[in-house]
Amino acid sequence: MSSMVILTEADLRKVIALDLDTVSCVEDAFAALATKAVSMPPILRLDVFEHRGEVDVKTAYVPGIESFAIKISPGFFDNPKIGIASTNGMMVLLSSRTGLVQALLLDNGYLTDVRTAAAGAVAAKHLSRENSKVAAIFGAGVQAKLQLEALMLVRPICQARIWARDFAKAQGVAAQLANALGLAVTAVADPKDAVAGADVIVTTTPSQTPILKAEWLEAGQHVTAMGSDAEHKNEIDPVAFAKAGLYVADSLKQTRRLGELHHAIATGAVAADAAFPELGQIVAGQRQSRSDAMQITIADLTGTGIQDTAIATLAFARASAANAGTKFES
Amino acid sequence: MSSMVILTEADLRKVIALDLDTVSCVEDAFAALATKAVSMPPILRLDVFEHRGEVDVKTAYVPGIESFAIKISPGFFDNPKIGIASTNGMMVLLSSRTGLVQALLLDNGYLTDVRTAAAGAVAAKHLSRENSKVAAIFGAGVQAKLQLEALMLVRPICQARIWARDFAKAQGVAAQLANALGLAVTAVADPKDAVAGADVIVTTTPSQTPILKAEWLEAGQHVTAMGSDAEHKNEIDPVAFAKAGLYVADSLKQTRRLGELHHAIATGAVAADAAFPELGQIVAGQRQSRSDAMQITIADLTGTGIQDTAIATLAFARASAANAGTKFES
Repeated sequence: MSSMVILTEADLRKVIALDLDTVSCVEDAFAALATKAVSMPPILRLDVFEHRGEVDVKTAYVPGIESFAIKISPGFFDNPKIGIASTNGMMVLLSSRTGLVQALLLDNGYLTDVRTAAAGAVAAKHLSRENSKVAAIFGAGVQAKLQLEALMLVRPICQARIWARDFAKAQGVAAQLANALGLAVTAVADPKDAVAGADVIVTTTPSQTPILKAEWLEAGQHVTAMGSDAEHKNEIDPVAFAKAGLYVADSLKQTRRLGELHHAIATGAVAADAAFPELGQIVAGQRQSRSDAMQITIADLTGTGIQDTAIATLAFARASAANAGTKFES
Repeated sequence: MSSMVILTEADLRKVIALDLDTVSCVEDAFAALATKAVSMPPILRLDVFEHRGEVDVKTAYVPGIESFAIKISPGFFDNPKIGIASTNGMMVLLSSRTGLVQALLLDNGYLTDVRTAAAGAVAAKHLSRENSKVAAIFGAGVQAKLQLEALMLVRPICQARIWARDFAKAQGVAAQLANALGLAVTAVADPKDAVAGADVIVTTTPSQTPILKAEWLEAGQHVTAMGSDAEHKNEIDPVAFAKAGLYVADSLKQTRRLGELHHAIATGAVAADAAFPELGQIVAGQRQSRSDAMQITIADLTGTGIQDTAIATLAFARASAANAGTKFES
């Protein structure tokens, strides 16, 4: 007989929120990536072209974490036509000691949303100026909202601008966020205006052509690009690499293939083997963060298996303590 | 609300057996691999060196099959010390149209065992001589038994020899199989004696050095090597490649990296880019099978995601028809 726990999205929302604990859990995972013998194989990617579908499978083993997650993230882009979400997903949590399944986390992507936003907070905490007050968010989806919320956990943000290709959507999100976060949030029609005077810029779109122009960037700004997680996505003008004094990858192996760096290499703006620091190395103090208040910094986040393992393990521990979920014996 | 079905090993054993239906299901999957726009990404492999653990994740989408499986196969080799099996595993079945999870197949590796044996039957059916009567099985594990059983579904086997490194184990398995299958099964101490006069030889061990010598092979014999599924495993003497008139891979991409072919390439016995046929191409009639009754043939099976998708979909269909399993709403 083996026993596992099934945790639904509702169960998981009760035990995991986007808060400083979550940020610190993800921050520790990045530090582990730099300091421990982490196993993080390349993302498995399955394409179902016939139905405009794709599935990513991510995993990582972090020494010292008692479980590891295998995350299955499908995106089927014709789903909205039949009234269901494009993306969903789940995680399987296995024991690091025995490989036995401990839990099924039927989160429909909730844990991914939270750990992705938390990585944005980790990047801002370690790369942006401490007194960053003005945020510019590109995009009007779930991450646009969560990234702003995450930013507020680590920086004294008091004003935000939202730009999205669809201005009406940007207005809707701005109103929602102003209300929810008690912040001055305005929608802007011109992305250049969003960037002007911002301290932190977060791009959260699935854009396939750069939406953030290098010429708009100002001294001291920090940019987190978290929209690109596939070869064809690109939010940041490759020229920005020359303007930025510091570029940081979540995983250099991944950003070379899937991130903004991929396009900077493809256009010749950056050498293919340029040895940029990783976020975990900066968290762990192995590499230097921004040199001064004038440096432009870029964080390129493609999403890593260590984040999934970290948040899934935290969720499981909390759910177990709360006796949440459904036990399943087989 | 989304709904999925959880099928336990007990549920799955009731609906899937190693029979001609299963063989034909796996045979069709191989044909699809040769004739359809199948997506089968490289196997994701996670190592947990600290606990002598490893996890393989396999998947494949086959056009025309309404679901696809993502299979998680952990092997943690210190588990027996604490009284649990080294290997277990489960599959997640997703809709090919929407990516939604349809079923969790908590099979503990049962479906893998059956689809692996079924592939052996497919190989023998298409490559061995039709009148093959004598089988030699290397190994004394689950696959040793199942491969013999599978062989009997497609060839008029009336005698079998079992060789294993541990002769006592070979004797035990031989007695079991003689009893279960009503066949003359004998354990042999010398592997050379097992091969002499055999029509079909199946190697099922995790050996890391060749256990089947090329010099033992006789005209007309067919060899299925199914033990190697990782870089370091090797059952067949690379010299056998020169002696065999026909070498067939389940997936050439995989056998070049993980199979017997990998070692034949490494020793220089075979060119790295030699364009061998795949089993599916032979099933589909695109490539020629054995030329005559004297040719020596080798099938190199590393295990493919198409087999998992095929058998998981069959299991789910049968379980649904039988109203088996536990519905889980979330």
